[in-house]
Amino acid sequence: MKKLINSPADVLTESLAGFAAAHADIVTLGENGAFVRRATPTPGKVAIISGGGSGHEPLHAGFVGLGMLDAACPGQVFTSPTPDQMIAAAQAVDQGAGVLFVVKNYEGDKMNFEMASEMAADIVAGGTATVITDDDVAVEKSTWSIGRRGVAGTMVVEKIVGAAAEEGMALADLAALGTRVNAATRSMGVALSSCIVPAAGTPTFTLADDEMEMGVGIHGEPGRRRVKTMTADEITEEMIAAITGDFAESAGAGGGAGEAQVAATAAAEAAPATSGPATDGGDEVLLLVNGFGGTPLMELYLMYHAARPRLEARGFRVVRSLVGNYVTSLEMAGCSLTVTRLDAETTRLWDAPVKTAGLRWGV
Amino acid sequence: MKKLINSPADVLTESLAGFAAAHADIVTLGENGAFVRRATPTPGKVAIISGGGSGHEPLHAGFVGLGMLDAACPGQVFTSPTPDQMIAAAQAVDQGAGVLFVVKNYEGDKMNFEMASEMAADIVAGGTATVITDDDVAVEKSTWSIGRRGVAGTMVVEKIVGAAAEEGMALADLAALGTRVNAATRSMGVALSSCIVPAAGTPTFTLADDEMEMGVGIHGEPGRRRVKTMTADEITEEMIAAITGDFAESAGAGGGAGEAQVAATAAAEAAPATSGPATDGGDEVLLLVNGFGGTPLMELYLMYHAARPRLEARGFRVVRSLVGNYVTSLEMAGCSLTVTRLDAETTRLWDAPVKTAGLRWGV
Repeated sequence: MKKLINSPADVLTESLAGFAAAHADIVTLGENGAFVRRATPTPGKVAIISGGGSGHEPLHAGFVGLGMLDAACPGQVFTSPTPDQMIAAAQAVDQGAGVLFVVKNYEGDKMNFEMASEMAADIVAGGTATVITDDDVAVEKSTWSIGRRGVAGTMVVEKIVGAAAEEGMALADLAALGTRVNAATRSMGVALSSCIVPAAGTPTFTLADDEMEMGVGIHGEPGRRRVKTMTADEITEEMIAAITGDFAESAGAGGGAGEAQVAATAAAEAAPATSGPATDGGDEVLLLVNGFGGTPLMELYLMYHAARPRLEARGFRVVRSLVGNYVTSLEMAGCSLTVTRLDAETTRLWDAPVKTAGLRWGV
Repeated sequence: MKKLINSPADVLTESLAGFAAAHADIVTLGENGAFVRRATPTPGKVAIISGGGSGHEPLHAGFVGLGMLDAACPGQVFTSPTPDQMIAAAQAVDQGAGVLFVVKNYEGDKMNFEMASEMAADIVAGGTATVITDDDVAVEKSTWSIGRRGVAGTMVVEKIVGAAAEEGMALADLAALGTRVNAATRSMGVALSSCIVPAAGTPTFTLADDEMEMGVGIHGEPGRRRVKTMTADEITEEMIAAITGDFAESAGAGGGAGEAQVAATAAAEAAPATSGPATDGGDEVLLLVNGFGGTPLMELYLMYHAARPRLEARGFRVVRSLVGNYVTSLEMAGCSLTVTRLDAETTRLWDAPVKTAGLRWGV
């Protein structure tokens, strides 16, 4: 195992300390490194807290700051943080308006955040609520989750909910918004190589020189199938077909991808037909090409170039884009595509100012 | 070779097209993809143009935008762009105030930019000037360069010169400023793995499982020596010692690193002793931990954590920080450290608003 570390046991502690020191204008480290919080809180708003295993940086600590998260709880690499961490974070950032937890759908994370949410509800004046993200269409259940996994779409939920909280949206409305954005989001990934968890010291899985894992999870867990290497065009074709096909299924019988309006669970809160860009044809989307950590930016932009026309050929219009390493799997090579159907409200919230270590604009 | 591409011959074209489409609010692709330019020029200012081989993304195209570059010329992977590209870029972005080329010190780049600068001088009303960057202290000459190589410090020069140009600084002053910032900047890198140039299809070099290349260049070219793997503390100790030792040597006999003021070539333009933070102790610096593309962000922050106290123990104060993948070598694992001595003017220009695909704040 070749890594820029001192010892596997100290990776998280030392990395977090470096993160907090490098971004002292944005974040502060909580006691014992239990959580990362904003250096400058916005008074009176609902606090948004996320967290999960480390190794996915900049998710989640890199998204703490104005317009996004109020705190993030980092676990050891690919290991859930503990309820204690989450409760400490909630106490630290609670402003009296309640706490919303954003949780990726993995058993460990769900269980611990659920415990924390219940316990924090007695401490936090404004109460607690939770949004579970499960945007990965690759598999219906996995070695790490019951139901779909929460992957790169989580950052889209965090961005949009974070912007709404900054504007003063109430807890119940934020929970509904987060659920709606998650329901409007689909992702799928592919891995060209494995990753090495420092404490394990050996690759999480192995791929032959001519193999890829199609539908891989963000911990290197299995996807749909092991396939021979394919071209960028072939890979994006399979991923976009899976994503748009899933949108179509959610829209119910008779709804082709191009005709599908808004995912079923989101229909209730969709913008009215006269008020926003998403209803102008109904299919405006955000396209996120997310690197897993070991793939050059050149290739991520090439994947964007391959994916976008395939979305557009199916009736979607790409109106917002993001390309980079945002929800990573240590040094795993590969990437995921995430598509979020936008409406007038979520487009505006996506565009709202954000000042975090990992995502920043407008400020 | 496993890469997210269609064919090696199309990597640059397809990647650039994706880049331009994903960031259409910031950049526009020049004819035949010869260069990337700002979508919205700032009228009347000196145009700043850089470029070089691709594979170092986000450098340089990712730094085109408000407050930084006006255009960037991408060559094939690790191959200089041609004078034609540079002249076309100069013609496209010239605003009548002249053109400044920022060029990393490699033979191919230098020769082609020199030709372009001479030819463009007859076309561009305000004339041309060039800043050569050579911040890499690892080797005094290399397989790619006569003299030191220009590496991650190049982005610091581009940021500071870009901000000054945005404020209306004249061509000759910008050239002097760029030269001063380069002279105040030192870098050194280490590689844990090689990278694969798509057109070559095989690794540029090979490292045993227990080896690192100390002082590696950004094309995977040899550094100071091949060493056994070391801890993050040991690696940063060697790199910081090399960087600060070099500052001390530049400051002349008797100047220990802690006492060294400003690199000799920069002394003439250093801020007066009463006017800025850099003179308050004399050793305020920017610390950039730059990933080469294949190393997780967790490890880069850990390296920051290891490097910063070693700088501070030598009398430097880290007042600005940047951690991430900015000047990469495709998927090479490893990182470089860059230290730039700041003064009041360069600190202010570093902080000035920048809106590019790869670096963004204040706007």
